[in-house]
Amino acid sequence: MKNIDLEIMVGFAEELANLASKVTLKYFRIPQSVETKSNTISNMASIADTEAEDAMVELIKEKFPEFGVIREEGDDIISKNGYNWVLDPIDGSSSFLAGRAIWGTLIALVDPNNEVILGVMDQPYTKERWVGAKNAPTLLNGQEISTNKSSDLNQTILAKTTPHMFITNKQKDVLKKIENLCGGKSIWGGDCYSYASLASGYSSPMTVLESDMNFYDFAALIPIIQGAGGRITNWQGNSLKLEDKEVLATSNEVLHKLAIEHINNH
Amino acid sequence: MKNIDLEIMVGFAEELANLASKVTLKYFRIPQSVETKSNTISNMASIADTEAEDAMVELIKEKFPEFGVIREEGDDIISKNGYNWVLDPIDGSSSFLAGRAIWGTLIALVDPNNEVILGVMDQPYTKERWVGAKNAPTLLNGQEISTNKSSDLNQTILAKTTPHMFITNKQKDVLKKIENLCGGKSIWGGDCYSYASLASGYSSPMTVLESDMNFYDFAALIPIIQGAGGRITNWQGNSLKLEDKEVLATSNEVLHKLAIEHINNH
Repeated sequence: MKNIDLEIMVGFAEELANLASKVTLKYFRIPQSVETKSNTISNMASIADTEAEDAMVELIKEKFPEFGVIREEGDDIISKNGYNWVLDPIDGSSSFLAGRAIWGTLIALVDPNNEVILGVMDQPYTKERWVGAKNAPTLLNGQEISTNKSSDLNQTILAKTTPHMFITNKQKDVLKKIENLCGGKSIWGGDCYSYASLASGYSSPMTVLESDMNFYDFAALIPIIQGAGGRITNWQGNSLKLEDKEVLATSNEVLHKLAIEHINNH
Repeated sequence: MKNIDLEIMVGFAEELANLASKVTLKYFRIPQSVETKSNTISNMASIADTEAEDAMVELIKEKFPEFGVIREEGDDIISKNGYNWVLDPIDGSSSFLAGRAIWGTLIALVDPNNEVILGVMDQPYTKERWVGAKNAPTLLNGQEISTNKSSDLNQTILAKTTPHMFITNKQKDVLKKIENLCGGKSIWGGDCYSYASLASGYSSPMTVLESDMNFYDFAALIPIIQGAGGRITNWQGNSLKLEDKEVLATSNEVLHKLAIEHINNH
């Protein structure tokens, strides 16, 4: 197994994002007056999802056939060199269908040690692209970004996508604990955009607490958050793995420590 | 009491929105690296809210001193001609603080019969402005928009801002009923942006169900939704009044009828 050039891979991930954006933008914010097959208009998200994923997979097969693919829509492709691309063309399909430009295309690369070594989140409508890579600062449209360093819990925004992702009683308890811990505002919706906002250090310190997640929902966000100075782990405080379902992200180390203490203090 | 010229008032409402945007954009997406008074950075939303509201009130006093003002932040101003401006400079302050450009500045004008005769919703960062006026089609950045006409419940997106707005058991029951009725996707967060998306007819038919609302949260959205072909009422199906707390908006009449039937079918 030969080593890969991370810089080339970042460039290729951006190429994949460009390709996906052409498909997704074709289906985003289609006014109802545009004629489509009767009553299929709200399947736009899944049509766009499948079509964008297929396009990316074709390009990977053509340019880097030795790489595997872990994907949301179709069957996975087994890796020949130990590296895997992880694809989620539309994270936040409800936002997509409602016309909110806060969904994202997620692209990650996982090395043979199962470490995510690069992550791209692309919001093609607003032309915002976050790029994270191992041992490199995170870039938003080419500019270095860093998370909020404040550990003032009363100012911390707690973000989570939907109450339905907290399924077990323990998960519901943890949500309540962290809601009580963060004295600031509580916000819902957002999907991948919450993590990207956290990485960008916009205005407030942030905590994102989610469960019922899949690997393709969070893999790309790991290097994006880490390269900006944030922390992202499972609810036990350990590095996120393929099988993890529970995700905690914080703007900084101090907030992370406080959150983990509260989660485990049952 | 003399009649007012609605066209002039729409122009003035847009002038107010322009003024508010100068203030709000000064405080939106301030990276944490920008030095501000220690630990006040996450008060950005309330600072911007107050400052933008004061600026708008000053302009109203100067240009149209006979009009009253119903406002979120400061004391109301009693109307001398029966007309009232209704101001909410930042609807969606959590979105504002988290860097999501889906908050909005809401400006409405209420006539002496307590009817909302014009409404503006402005998202200054993305430069999206919705303008609704009595007996006129709703405009998004100058273009006429219309809601989705599909009454296919399986494709309907149900939007609501936060579970915390459903306080009483009856409100929680109604939420469950409407969630079951709408077979499509459920989406959280969004505040005023959900209503503006519904008016714009983006991709999917939509229902917005909310409670614990204030007049300045929904007044401007009434003409915006009505002028695009949607329906917005209280949960009993009646026209919204100053004291209403429960709001139902739908993309069209058929969805509205179905929702009202389900709400009242206890």
